[in-house]
Amino acid sequence: MSKKVSMAVIRRLPKYHRYLADLLDKEIYRISSKELSEIIGFTASQIRQDLNNFGGFGQQGYGYNVEELYNELSKILGLDKSYNTIIMGAGNLGQAIANYGGFRKSGFKVKALFDVNPRMIGLKMRDLEVLDAEDVEKYIKEEDIEIAVICTPKDRAQETADKLIAAGIKGIWNFAPTDITVPSDVKVEEVNLSESLYVLSYMLNEGNLNK
Amino acid sequence: MSKKVSMAVIRRLPKYHRYLADLLDKEIYRISSKELSEIIGFTASQIRQDLNNFGGFGQQGYGYNVEELYNELSKILGLDKSYNTIIMGAGNLGQAIANYGGFRKSGFKVKALFDVNPRMIGLKMRDLEVLDAEDVEKYIKEEDIEIAVICTPKDRAQETADKLIAAGIKGIWNFAPTDITVPSDVKVEEVNLSESLYVLSYMLNEGNLNK
Repeated sequence: MSKKVSMAVIRRLPKYHRYLADLLDKEIYRISSKELSEIIGFTASQIRQDLNNFGGFGQQGYGYNVEELYNELSKILGLDKSYNTIIMGAGNLGQAIANYGGFRKSGFKVKALFDVNPRMIGLKMRDLEVLDAEDVEKYIKEEDIEIAVICTPKDRAQETADKLIAAGIKGIWNFAPTDITVPSDVKVEEVNLSESLYVLSYMLNEGNLNK
Repeated sequence: MSKKVSMAVIRRLPKYHRYLADLLDKEIYRISSKELSEIIGFTASQIRQDLNNFGGFGQQGYGYNVEELYNELSKILGLDKSYNTIIMGAGNLGQAIANYGGFRKSGFKVKALFDVNPRMIGLKMRDLEVLDAEDVEKYIKEEDIEIAVICTPKDRAQETADKLIAAGIKGIWNFAPTDITVPSDVKVEEVNLSESLYVLSYMLNEGNLNK
């Protein structure tokens, strides 16, 4: 099994996982790489190459066993475990993420939201309490928190990350529109919504560029 | 000017734009491709190649004029215009997007939210009204709406997109965790939050994969 898989491959894995889940929902248990390719929109050779990074799963003349491949991808993606998660920043975005049902189903257990605003602290949002961001380090240690979601304003993101990391957090999902700097053993996944929106406006204007 | 720029290049453009804005904030008006490379984390040759897709901007021995490059990238990204925007789905995510200050600043003007829930319809969220999703087609035409953000549940995303497209929408920013099918003249940018989170859990588990 190769150790260093490229980010481009890694970013395609959740897509495979999602399509395989859809196939299982439809009670399809076996699929050729050609059929999978038609559904998912990658070439069959791309699919084989991607999966070969993890040992390869198809069998000549049989194709893929959907359930087996789904289960293997779940393991590869770390979805066979559960993760205690907290959200830093209890504004609309923090609340949206706290309530996003899909995460709970996949094993990401949001345990609490944290905020610096005294008017937010102590509020209950569905079954989650908003706690004082001052207390987050103690909470992370006591409640065995593994993942933190940063939904603070841009100018508080780095100090928030520093605090989280000092308390032992190894995984950060960053929604603040700024890069954060972390030690090499901490993993950060950034969701930059402005950048995504700019890609859309680029595409809307592409036809006019060389007029 | 080349017409077909690869998606990989396009996805890097907003990053250039953001870093150039930071440089202007710091009153830095001229930068070599080497210095830019150190800040942004792409190689100097990558930066030159990317920008060459749009004519190239650097001058031998001078480097880049930051303001000029920023303005050109703004045009390329379509950020020199403004876009009337609506949000389909007034839940937490829809509200979070409606309140995200960065969009307004960049010319994306959220005009209204739409929902199917009678308890939401008529509510005011800051200065935005929640309107009846039944009326969206009329609204799109009358208010000259160009971009729609889909924040509905997964199982309403396609029918919502169909309705928007029938009313003339050409740009869709889709947050529903499902692919939507659109005619070729409609541009869709997907934000799949689960897929992003799965990349984080992959990275957290990568070291254990071959144990």
